[in-house]
Amino acid sequence: MITLDDCRQADGDDLLAGLREHFDIPANLIYLDGNSLGAMPRRTPGHLDQVIRRQWGADLIRSWNTHGWMDLPLRLGDRLAPLIGAGPGEVLVADSTSINLFKLLDLALQLRPDRRVVLSDTGNFPTDLYMAQGLSRRLGREYELRLVEENALDAALTGDVAVMMVTQVNYRSGRLHDMARLTRLAHQAGALALWDLSHSAGALPVDLGGCDADLAVGCGYKYLNGGPGAPAFLYVNRRHQGKGSPTLSGWFGHQAPFDFDLHYTPASDIRRFLCGTPPVLSLAGLEVGLDLLSTVDMTLIRRKSVALTDLFIRLVRQECPDCFRLVSPEDSVARGSQVSFSHPAGYAIVQALIARQVIPDFRAPDILRFGFAPLYTRFADVWAAVQHLGAIMRSGEWRRPEFQVRQAVT
Amino acid sequence: MITLDDCRQADGDDLLAGLREHFDIPANLIYLDGNSLGAMPRRTPGHLDQVIRRQWGADLIRSWNTHGWMDLPLRLGDRLAPLIGAGPGEVLVADSTSINLFKLLDLALQLRPDRRVVLSDTGNFPTDLYMAQGLSRRLGREYELRLVEENALDAALTGDVAVMMVTQVNYRSGRLHDMARLTRLAHQAGALALWDLSHSAGALPVDLGGCDADLAVGCGYKYLNGGPGAPAFLYVNRRHQGKGSPTLSGWFGHQAPFDFDLHYTPASDIRRFLCGTPPVLSLAGLEVGLDLLSTVDMTLIRRKSVALTDLFIRLVRQECPDCFRLVSPEDSVARGSQVSFSHPAGYAIVQALIARQVIPDFRAPDILRFGFAPLYTRFADVWAAVQHLGAIMRSGEWRRPEFQVRQAVT
Repeated sequence: MITLDDCRQADGDDLLAGLREHFDIPANLIYLDGNSLGAMPRRTPGHLDQVIRRQWGADLIRSWNTHGWMDLPLRLGDRLAPLIGAGPGEVLVADSTSINLFKLLDLALQLRPDRRVVLSDTGNFPTDLYMAQGLSRRLGREYELRLVEENALDAALTGDVAVMMVTQVNYRSGRLHDMARLTRLAHQAGALALWDLSHSAGALPVDLGGCDADLAVGCGYKYLNGGPGAPAFLYVNRRHQGKGSPTLSGWFGHQAPFDFDLHYTPASDIRRFLCGTPPVLSLAGLEVGLDLLSTVDMTLIRRKSVALTDLFIRLVRQECPDCFRLVSPEDSVARGSQVSFSHPAGYAIVQALIARQVIPDFRAPDILRFGFAPLYTRFADVWAAVQHLGAIMRSGEWRRPEFQVRQAVT
Repeated sequence: MITLDDCRQADGDDLLAGLREHFDIPANLIYLDGNSLGAMPRRTPGHLDQVIRRQWGADLIRSWNTHGWMDLPLRLGDRLAPLIGAGPGEVLVADSTSINLFKLLDLALQLRPDRRVVLSDTGNFPTDLYMAQGLSRRLGREYELRLVEENALDAALTGDVAVMMVTQVNYRSGRLHDMARLTRLAHQAGALALWDLSHSAGALPVDLGGCDADLAVGCGYKYLNGGPGAPAFLYVNRRHQGKGSPTLSGWFGHQAPFDFDLHYTPASDIRRFLCGTPPVLSLAGLEVGLDLLSTVDMTLIRRKSVALTDLFIRLVRQECPDCFRLVSPEDSVARGSQVSFSHPAGYAIVQALIARQVIPDFRAPDILRFGFAPLYTRFADVWAAVQHLGAIMRSGEWRRPEFQVRQAVT
């Protein structure tokens, strides 16, 4: 039997507990959706205000040089790199995850010119699949996205696969792919491995270099706390740099953008994967989030994440016995920083939780998804959330008509 | 002989003079680079602070619905539409100009499947050319970017041209293409017309609808004052909507993003040209800029713009006789809202101006570029800028060693 005191004790013992003070989270809100949109660091409004007033407002165009706007995408990439096991010059912050996926899929297909297949699994996030569909349809000539079940990737790594594109943590179930093993298998099949770290960067240690991963992308607005629609990142293993030619060949990827050549020559380094002018205000938001994470040991973050998700699962079973089916892996080794349960009335139950100021999210058709951001989620939050959930299930509160009405959801 | 009093008189008579109060421009700075980075509206810091603290910080994930983040790209597009002669549902704010160009070039080539040529001119902005080069190289199969001189577009509109891609106002010379005429010629040749409005939207009346233009893109951080790296826009004439299939097929362009289908089905409307998650903070910055412009009659803006550039040219000739060669068209009808002069020591002269708090910019090899943003540039600013220029030229101040040192420039 787990008690509130146990949870308070865990908070008291938590080496990361002080980090919550760096975030501004509304009192009385239990926010379990940091896997969708991370919380706001306290320093963000002030930093943005300074960038807007001093850099843009006062120094205007000169800030591209004097405030280092030109270097922001690479500088933030270098700051992000240690979180994902990358080295300097291997990571760039730019555009959206979708656009970055396109850039790297395009590169992968150029690096394996005699192969035509992008392999992925049905647990991948849809935009990843859509981008691969868009590129392969446009290229024609038998290019294709081949989709298999999550546990069937091994067998599907046949000799025609150019690139295996997988998301490390399944957005729906929280299932964690084994990056080292799958990357090795991809390489044995002569394919490249492209990882989407949207649900893992900032939530667990990622070792792209140690796994010898080829390519990766990820999201800036989830566990990196960069703000809504924050720029995304991309990683290109050093051994693949300088190869191929970007199809999204914008001027910021040119080797000398301000020479205004009529012909595109890609930068020799990772900057070739820049495209248009970088979004300075959004980058400034992400910078604060990255600064916060840079101070923390990712193994501590992972340890707390596992403790939070384990606690949540045990508490749900204790307080809501036989109510839900666990969709996430039972074993924390195979799980990211989220827990998903299914219930036929999942949508209404999530609405009832939101009405009680507990914020998870819902994924059709029947999944209640709870995210645990180790930087600011407390063990006592987990306790309180499950108390609300238990009350909702015992009382049948979720049956109220107002909770049945579907709205646009995110 | 033009006098300071004449300029003061012009400011006194200026119907738009009050708009400068909506911008926060450093005292003693004469900013003539709004064609590169627009100035900061006074309302921007407060609006961003509210979006950051209240929408992101307090309401978190719920803001996608409650604060209308989902609709921002289309809502801002509709607000921008009247400035460029477009109708509701024809404009979208998203991504960068470069990425948007790729989307629309891709569409154009799909709409003319039996043609292989993108036609453009050597006066186009390099990133436009680079994006066309990237796409055509990747498609192979004899796709090509065909480049001709600015005045040779007419003759180059041959039967193999799928799309004519031109920038309305030349970034270097300020030369203004005749949109109605060139669009008509393109259509007569069976080609589509794709206009880049980066240096015209917000600076002069644009009538995409009246010219029957097919496609357009443009920049948010110049005359729209959206902030550094602000999102760009794209326009798709209603008659072309719902056709083709976007290659940059991200989830926000799906007809039902939150159904999380495994297969991409594009939205039936212009939303199909969305790709990844919209950058909310950057969009909020652009919203303020668009609000300001929405209050103003574009014909008044153009009238003031012409008066400013005419005045500048006359004053430079008066104060610096025989110093410079006018690169911009003499006739204001053929000129955008900038004036470019050339001088062999152009770089050093621009540095000397900057040292005197007059901010134009330099474009290699020898161009001094002066932008005139009618919303906040005063006739007295033009006078003062030219007084500084005259002093620099008469004294030879630009010969100082510190002005010769080349730095990274924007």
